[in-house]
Amino acid sequence: MTNINDLKRLADAASVQTLKYFRSNLNVDNKYEVGFDPVTAGDREAEAAIRQILDADFPDHGILGEEFGAKNLDARYVWVIDPIDGTRAFISGLPVWGTLVGLMEDGVAKQGFMHQPYTDELYIADGTQSWLIEKGGEPQKLASRQSAKLQDAIMFTTSPALYQGAEAEGYKRLEGRTKLARYGTDCYGAVMVASGHADIFIEAGLQSYDIVALIPIIEQAGGVITTVDGERAEKGGTILAAGSKELHAEALQAYWGRA
Amino acid sequence: MTNINDLKRLADAASVQTLKYFRSNLNVDNKYEVGFDPVTAGDREAEAAIRQILDADFPDHGILGEEFGAKNLDARYVWVIDPIDGTRAFISGLPVWGTLVGLMEDGVAKQGFMHQPYTDELYIADGTQSWLIEKGGEPQKLASRQSAKLQDAIMFTTSPALYQGAEAEGYKRLEGRTKLARYGTDCYGAVMVASGHADIFIEAGLQSYDIVALIPIIEQAGGVITTVDGERAEKGGTILAAGSKELHAEALQAYWGRA
Repeated sequence: MTNINDLKRLADAASVQTLKYFRSNLNVDNKYEVGFDPVTAGDREAEAAIRQILDADFPDHGILGEEFGAKNLDARYVWVIDPIDGTRAFISGLPVWGTLVGLMEDGVAKQGFMHQPYTDELYIADGTQSWLIEKGGEPQKLASRQSAKLQDAIMFTTSPALYQGAEAEGYKRLEGRTKLARYGTDCYGAVMVASGHADIFIEAGLQSYDIVALIPIIEQAGGVITTVDGERAEKGGTILAAGSKELHAEALQAYWGRA
Repeated sequence: MTNINDLKRLADAASVQTLKYFRSNLNVDNKYEVGFDPVTAGDREAEAAIRQILDADFPDHGILGEEFGAKNLDARYVWVIDPIDGTRAFISGLPVWGTLVGLMEDGVAKQGFMHQPYTDELYIADGTQSWLIEKGGEPQKLASRQSAKLQDAIMFTTSPALYQGAEAEGYKRLEGRTKLARYGTDCYGAVMVASGHADIFIEAGLQSYDIVALIPIIEQAGGVITTVDGERAEKGGTILAAGSKELHAEALQAYWGRA
């Protein structure tokens, strides 16, 4: 396991790379070659910066990254990295993407962060509690909203178009029961649930690296996150998070058409 | 007419009020009464702060505001105010809402700003040029993207569900021709077009106060903004903006099913 300062160091190293490319067309001195893709460059350079620190400081730990694959996944501790989650937001100039790094112990996500470097919001789970470090200030404890019923819920998903077949039906049933659905926010939606600004985060077809960092942030803020089958979320799939245990149960019932 | 410093002063006065209420549930010492609505309070207090300055400094000018109505609309100069554009983003904790203030001369929008106070991005049109003042830094010239074709275009709209009847058909035709459509961004989508990060901004059912501030920001960055009927956009309605004259024409053709 590690500590908040180590996590912050990883976030800082990645942000140097991602911010070089976010909104980089404003920087008119920077003439890229035809076919150059800023988000791919930012993705690769940020993951490389994170892995360099991990290789040096935690040589026995495993690493699973979106860009550079897997190393030593049988280790007790495995780091899981998505350098830019929300690439469509990134290429559109919207500050609702994030850098995700999670740490699993024996396959269970225990610590992690989501960093939005343009707004400088760092959402961190330290192993027992989730925090927001905003614009370099003092850490503030995160607490998910415990009181919302489904009919009052604000829900986030990246796009309704990502659900196929029975999942599309389930998603539609769930959305119809909420007060407000917001699209296009990727990992930013999850940290809004952890912060108590929103109530439900649901995504289809996730990979491990899309979700491992977010699991402890949700759980250690008082929320619940599982697959829609009620299993642990570390392996990805279709994932539902809610601010409270009661709302999570109510949302799953609605998704499956059981209430 | 006015200058950048006057516009900045209005933005600063409004931001003190809006930031009191944005994400205010994090502030656990602040216990609101049942039924208290942070976005309504922020809306009213921000518009009041703006009107107080305008009444003192420009007593002969007209004012049209979302919250407190109209005054002296026959004046040569009329200010148009939407204190919080994007109330659904505001209540969900997302920093993609904005404070909009525009200034019309003889019914034509000439100056204005969009301010996102949490990220501290101030998009300003001074009468001839659009600027971004980011985190209190030096103003940077804005230039919309001139080269994008419709098939490469990134498009923003608040929600496809806001289009009715023939407009829904038109919207669907247009979206089908673009590369990427993003939802839920309100005024933030317009300033992304002015900044050259996105290419098209389209919204249905707008009021004057939703759009007057954004017109000069788009136009003075090199973009084109009209109603879908090709008229000036100051009166609202269904509005289409694009980064270039050519793309604006191409998008209107697609919307009307003429190409």
